[in-house]
Amino acid sequence: MIFMKKKAVCLISGGIDSCVTAYLAKNDDYSIYALTINYNQQHKKEILSANKIAESLKVKNHITLNIDFSKFGGSSLTDKSIQVEKNRNFNSIGKNIPSTYVPARNTVFLSIALAYAEAIDAEGIFIGVTSTDYSGYPDCRPEYIEAYKKMAKLGTKKGIQGKPIKIKTPLLYKLKAEIIKIGLDLKVPFEHTWSCYKGEKKACGKCDSCLLRLKGFKESEARDPIEYDFVPNWYKN
Amino acid sequence: MIFMKKKAVCLISGGIDSCVTAYLAKNDDYSIYALTINYNQQHKKEILSANKIAESLKVKNHITLNIDFSKFGGSSLTDKSIQVEKNRNFNSIGKNIPSTYVPARNTVFLSIALAYAEAIDAEGIFIGVTSTDYSGYPDCRPEYIEAYKKMAKLGTKKGIQGKPIKIKTPLLYKLKAEIIKIGLDLKVPFEHTWSCYKGEKKACGKCDSCLLRLKGFKESEARDPIEYDFVPNWYKN
Repeated sequence: MIFMKKKAVCLISGGIDSCVTAYLAKNDDYSIYALTINYNQQHKKEILSANKIAESLKVKNHITLNIDFSKFGGSSLTDKSIQVEKNRNFNSIGKNIPSTYVPARNTVFLSIALAYAEAIDAEGIFIGVTSTDYSGYPDCRPEYIEAYKKMAKLGTKKGIQGKPIKIKTPLLYKLKAEIIKIGLDLKVPFEHTWSCYKGEKKACGKCDSCLLRLKGFKESEARDPIEYDFVPNWYKN
Repeated sequence: MIFMKKKAVCLISGGIDSCVTAYLAKNDDYSIYALTINYNQQHKKEILSANKIAESLKVKNHITLNIDFSKFGGSSLTDKSIQVEKNRNFNSIGKNIPSTYVPARNTVFLSIALAYAEAIDAEGIFIGVTSTDYSGYPDCRPEYIEAYKKMAKLGTKKGIQGKPIKIKTPLLYKLKAEIIKIGLDLKVPFEHTWSCYKGEKKACGKCDSCLLRLKGFKESEARDPIEYDFVPNWYKN
């Protein structure tokens, strides 16, 4: 009898959370089918990072799908006329929905992953959403994920045949520092990940995403291996 | 005071159902933002039809978004190696999920529409799903649509702010003949619509989609204005 590994579609964005999530899937002995959505965000550094991460994971396949969200606008990540917030303090991050919110992004990403998972008969989808120190996005909350699971079960052939595709969110209740610690244990190549909302040579160290990343490394008592243009004093000490 | 029409995103595929649905939205005095998904189906006739329909509707904007489903396969509509069923009788249509089922297609389409609707601050999304003489697709059933609405409310900024984007499915409980009658009342240009799973010059008259369409016209005592390569005897009489 040939032993067939169970398959998982892993959404890989290029950031820390999706990278650690995919390494968790690998650690669970899934055969990884990586999926990256190029939604025409303002820079392509994330896509390059996703490619390096997929390579390091030795995935079975890596599909990069283009979906041009810039046709819709409505977010600073896809619309050049909207400014990304910077230098905010941690008390304001997560209080309001910031300009970087991309309308229905996780819903679109999960839906594409669902299509892929059903087409290849995968057991599950892994997505690196976190609700704990999240940036204020509605589509990162546990109640949203639960509702998504119900909808996905009812809307797929596998679902109505009693084998719904599992939606796995192993980091949902983890803090950034905990995620980084898990990643360090799994020997995740953090040097390949990219979090900064800007796509310069070095990370800016000022946007919400850089700040949360640096705070996570600080709290996990590790050093972030990527280069920054600017580093806040609290990280240095 | 300037009167602003409420906005609706209308998913327009090129077929009868989405066309009649968009005409219903127009009849409800919505300002129409048409959305067509080119999912790399085997032929482009639907896309040409969608363009003609959008033009006839005098839409505010028409976005055609490319999402290459053929990278996933798993359906006879996106994978040339899988045959489309033909010459089936009506008793077998709808009993099983046919090869033309595209994994999670409506979930992907609705999710893209949700992103668009939120970005332009639309009040609702119109989609032409029907559950009555449907082709056996899980993502055309009322319980699926209900689950989608809940998920969409929880996963969007507008939803958590108490103004969820409405998901409108005016044809959900209509039979094809009823839909055609509604369309005739609204002066829908059926000559611009395309239903056949094949993309030849004329419709094949043999696939499930042609058969359901012809049956609908027959039962509504109207003549289908498009040309067919083959027409079943029961339609002629």
